[in-house]
Amino acid sequence: MEEIRETIRNTNLKFAEAFERGDVGAVAALYTSDARLLPPDAPMLSGTEAIQAFWQGAMNLGVKAATLETIDVESSGGGLACEIGKFTLSMETPGGERIAQTGKYIVLWKNDAGVWKLHADIWNANAAA
Amino acid sequence: MEEIRETIRNTNLKFAEAFERGDVGAVAALYTSDARLLPPDAPMLSGTEAIQAFWQGAMNLGVKAATLETIDVESSGGGLACEIGKFTLSMETPGGERIAQTGKYIVLWKNDAGVWKLHADIWNANAAA
Repeated sequence: MEEIRETIRNTNLKFAEAFERGDVGAVAALYTSDARLLPPDAPMLSGTEAIQAFWQGAMNLGVKAATLETIDVESSGGGLACEIGKFTLSMETPGGERIAQTGKYIVLWKNDAGVWKLHADIWNANAAA
Repeated sequence: MEEIRETIRNTNLKFAEAFERGDVGAVAALYTSDARLLPPDAPMLSGTEAIQAFWQGAMNLGVKAATLETIDVESSGGGLACEIGKFTLSMETPGGERIAQTGKYIVLWKNDAGVWKLHADIWNANAAA
């Protein structure tokens, strides 16, 4: 269990690092190939290509960084774990101002041939935009 | 696995029925006593009392009905399951007009002394309000 938590923490750091350098391919590679993304105010989407396009769109809209912090991980083994966490998105407005959005998420993690990957990912904000 | 799906389906029906008759106590009783609720545009909250107050607030704001439809359930046993689903909320505006909001959710289910209950519940809308 501690090992799963540690792996999730490390993968979340990889997510943040890949995001910050604008490497959407590396971000999308952290998800399983049939993962589902459930973004706020947008339809559910699925699969590497759609997930990569979604995060590319977010970056194009000014999202510069995403930090993820685990609150709790529940797992009964068997290659699945459920993480509850909180996030901060840093965005740059068209005027060049930096703003931060905070929120929370649930990620279903799946052990995919020995590598823990995001298999379903949903989040929402703590306050209306 | 089929049994878990069936139980989740039945509990979701109970949720919808309790919601429609405005019985927030019965809605809250479907969650574990330390469950977490992660509502859009509001902070995370936890525990029966806070969850009941949240749903009471939603009803007071005009939410009249909630229907839940499972898309997928992932479980590796051990008393935990992760459901991905879609919802429709029916709301009555102050002017008496009925509107529907559709969205999606992830629920972490926990077997609590033989009864499957919602242990973490997050959702968001398919389109901006």
